[in-house]
Amino acid sequence: MPICDAQVEQGVRASFARQGAMRLIRASLQRVEAGRAEIHLPHWEGVAQQHGFVHGGVVGMIADSAAGYAAMTVAPAGASVLTVEYKLNLMAPADGRQLIARGMVVRGGRTLIVTRAEVFAVKDGKETLCALMQQTIMVMHGKEEKPASSQ
Amino acid sequence: MPICDAQVEQGVRASFARQGAMRLIRASLQRVEAGRAEIHLPHWEGVAQQHGFVHGGVVGMIADSAAGYAAMTVAPAGASVLTVEYKLNLMAPADGRQLIARGMVVRGGRTLIVTRAEVFAVKDGKETLCALMQQTIMVMHGKEEKPASSQ
Amino acid sequence: MPICDAQVEQGVRASFARQGAMRLIRASLQRVEAGRAEIHLPHWEGVAQQHGFVHGGVVGMIADSAAGYAAMTVAPAGASVLTVEYKLNLMAPADGRQLIARGMVVRGGRTLIVTRAEVFAVKDGKETLCALMQQTIMVMHGKEEKPASSQ
Amino acid sequence: MPICDAQVEQGVRASFARQGAMRLIRASLQRVEAGRAEIHLPHWEGVAQQHGFVHGGVVGMIADSAAGYAAMTVAPAGASVLTVEYKLNLMAPADGRQLIARGMVVRGGRTLIVTRAEVFAVKDGKETLCALMQQTIMVMHGKEEKPASSQ
Repeated sequence: MPICDAQVEQGVRASFARQGAMRLIRASLQRVEAGRAEIHLPHWEGVAQQHGFVHGGVVGMIADSAAGYAAMTVAPAGASVLTVEYKLNLMAPADGRQLIARGMVVRGGRTLIVTRAEVFAVKDGKETLCALMQQTIMVMHGKEEKPASSQ
Repeated sequence: MPICDAQVEQGVRASFARQGAMRLIRASLQRVEAGRAEIHLPHWEGVAQQHGFVHGGVVGMIADSAAGYAAMTVAPAGASVLTVEYKLNLMAPADGRQLIARGMVVRGGRTLIVTRAEVFAVKDGKETLCALMQQTIMVMHGKEEKPASSQ
Repeated sequence: MPICDAQVEQGVRASFARQGAMRLIRASLQRVEAGRAEIHLPHWEGVAQQHGFVHGGVVGMIADSAAGYAAMTVAPAGASVLTVEYKLNLMAPADGRQLIARGMVVRGGRTLIVTRAEVFAVKDGKETLCALMQQTIMVMHGKEEKPASSQ
Repeated sequence: MPICDAQVEQGVRASFARQGAMRLIRASLQRVEAGRAEIHLPHWEGVAQQHGFVHGGVVGMIADSAAGYAAMTVAPAGASVLTVEYKLNLMAPADGRQLIARGMVVRGGRTLIVTRAEVFAVKDGKETLCALMQQTIMVMHGKEEKPASSQ
């Protein structure tokens, strides 16, 4: 995967750090590259649904964020990104000690960016594809994200 | 809204209570009726995204659950329900002191149930529609949910 | 339903008339109102799939157009509209002598409009909901549709 | 791409031949392989929208069919397949002398199959990705498709 600009990666990492919801579920941003981002989530009781697997909504959260941050790496400097919509298929129980969400840009544009994300459950060292997302992102030109303190 | 069978409501509430992820985000199941369910979420720092609004993934979690539990009210006794897929449009910032997700069944079937959910942000006593979901649910016949202790 | 401006309705009808694909499947634009549009389709052999019902893709075509033209009624003068994406659930066989697609605006915005469409199959005078769509439309400001002759 | 069983391919081709809607738009089934199918569509006035490009609904038709037939190649003998739902992003104008829709299975299952399709516009010998679809297919066991004459 191509490496992205250091300033772009820094902006993505700073934005992720401001998301209380990502901290709450204990998600971490592991990789940021040009057009790609990867988020990891440990399987713990706080993110479980009634059968003990990771909740489909939590799977959606990390897929949405991974794809959204992938889009942010290709947006122009000084712009922020916003999820317009996404569609998520849950294909297998999110069963394993960890989930990995990989987001990637399918097609960039000035106003809209189309992305995809795949979520894998890692069990006994083996990755199983458990969810697939297709997403539309909007680029907000001249609306750079600010640290919370200056908002 | 038509009231649903007391046993059905009890089953839905027991299932909701087993979801660690709903507790984590502080969501509560407020209403269960035939073909409908309503989930409330207070706006607190744990569910925020980088702009201070409720995270889109958290909006998706309560929409997914509200629509899924609406489907559970129309599934036959002894069956459980599973989210096959959903599509969510985020239409306005989830800005307010509380979110309300209302799920409803559009069309029931033996194997698949199609549902919708609307999420409203409540601010100064006024509800604003901030997200719209369309979802497909699968009915798992003869696979009743069991309390975690007996699994 | 509120009646819309005569000039708006005329613009919608002129755009519909330029769509060769709507003529090909014999679809007609029956109603245009503020935030709503309705398209009718007779059931004939040219639009059938392998079981004799109307093809799901044709159902999608009239749903997409009905929702898109509903959006066009709320777009500013001099703008055109473009389908960004849609999601369609096919819930029952499109079985009957006619289909009716009803599109409606859920939320308008300067750049994006979210719409819904419902498609009904009419059989023995009774309407059955056979498809449900959720759609995102983009407003192209200052890009008015032109008659084909001047393109 | 792996070649699929001759009988499977024959079943897919026979089903395609029964679709009046595919004939109407002049689509042809070009390739059938294990887990994949490819449909071609010439650009002619009958499938145009108001700007002269291929209508988004027609793009959806060939994407839906290509992905659905990809699913049919992995369904058990004696079963038929049905589109439950799909989500389509239109990313670029379908501009060119021909469209190519490529469908592929993402994950098979006993009851549901998740697929994807990509649609490319061919212009001056160059393919441009113009649409992306994510789809859910249902397997109907013991409901083999019959030729129209015996229905």
